[in-house]
Amino acid sequence: MTEKLRGQLHFLREVDKMKSIFRQTWLTDRSRQENDAEHSWHLALTAMTLFEYCGFDDVDLDRVIRMALVHDLVEIYAGDTFAYDQIGNESKQQREKESADKLFSLLPSTQASEYRALWEEFDQMETHDAIYASAIDRLQSLNNIHLSGGVTWLQHSITSDMIYQRMQPIKQALPELWGYIEYCVNEGLEKGYVKPVLQD
Amino acid sequence: MTEKLRGQLHFLREVDKMKSIFRQTWLTDRSRQENDAEHSWHLALTAMTLFEYCGFDDVDLDRVIRMALVHDLVEIYAGDTFAYDQIGNESKQQREKESADKLFSLLPSTQASEYRALWEEFDQMETHDAIYASAIDRLQSLNNIHLSGGVTWLQHSITSDMIYQRMQPIKQALPELWGYIEYCVNEGLEKGYVKPVLQD
Repeated sequence: MTEKLRGQLHFLREVDKMKSIFRQTWLTDRSRQENDAEHSWHLALTAMTLFEYCGFDDVDLDRVIRMALVHDLVEIYAGDTFAYDQIGNESKQQREKESADKLFSLLPSTQASEYRALWEEFDQMETHDAIYASAIDRLQSLNNIHLSGGVTWLQHSITSDMIYQRMQPIKQALPELWGYIEYCVNEGLEKGYVKPVLQD
Repeated sequence: MTEKLRGQLHFLREVDKMKSIFRQTWLTDRSRQENDAEHSWHLALTAMTLFEYCGFDDVDLDRVIRMALVHDLVEIYAGDTFAYDQIGNESKQQREKESADKLFSLLPSTQASEYRALWEEFDQMETHDAIYASAIDRLQSLNNIHLSGGVTWLQHSITSDMIYQRMQPIKQALPELWGYIEYCVNEGLEKGYVKPVLQD
């Protein structure tokens, strides 16, 4: 077996750890929190299923799917950082960069560059492919939180304006879905698991 | 919201159940069995990572990735059938057909046909795309069983010839990986979690 293939098999063994990195979102049946591996799969399938609602006409769905598959790999050593965690997000960039260096070094250089570039593109959220992928990422999380009874939002005292702020990419990338976001937030406000914005 | 979009969101909610369908394979750290959602993700990423070893020159990797994402969806209502379970495999086709009818009916007809066709193609294992996808599917399972100390093979009294028989697609679709299959089987024989073939 070549050194190259050995490294790739090592990488494929290492990524098994994604199945034990738990996110703040829950399964819809509320049995447990969702892990990064199954989230990445759900994200890729959601990108496929809702592609006809994509608000850009130049998105390459196959690139978006590959982006979905690798977008959370850096959490293997950096851990999951909750979207609304201000302190955690300050150190996120450095932690994830170090994790990427470690993980992608197992791969041959061309492949390492390909995976790293997809992750960086997703993270920078500048290209249409990345904005669509991010919008789907946020929609998948919101949907699982909504369907699991809002426990994530309740636990972290999330307000409606925080959710609307986080969901902004959906306005551009999935405009027809915006009504669904409003519906979910309004239901959360009614049921008490989303906090209203305090007026001055 | 249109009826079509409502159906697609229903589908995306329903597929969350993939996260609670457990396979006979274990995580590499042996903490628990692997579920269908994370297996599908690992499969798609493996197909991407080992594509340079594909023994066919006409495989469309992006189709294979989409196939990986949908290939186990029918298990949502049909359940997982262990590859070496003869009795379960006799009723598998009918159970999975009924499951596909139920699940894909949530989607608009063009999309339902697309997903169903990908699943059927995978299952029939006739096209090069499907043979490559199946080879990767078998490799991912073998690898997780090998790395988790062979508990699946031990529990089910699996013999070396049963494994070689099951791994046949790898000979064609990933010829350079065959040596790795032999290495895993031989280690299993040495450590006693793969049973030798009884001689007459």
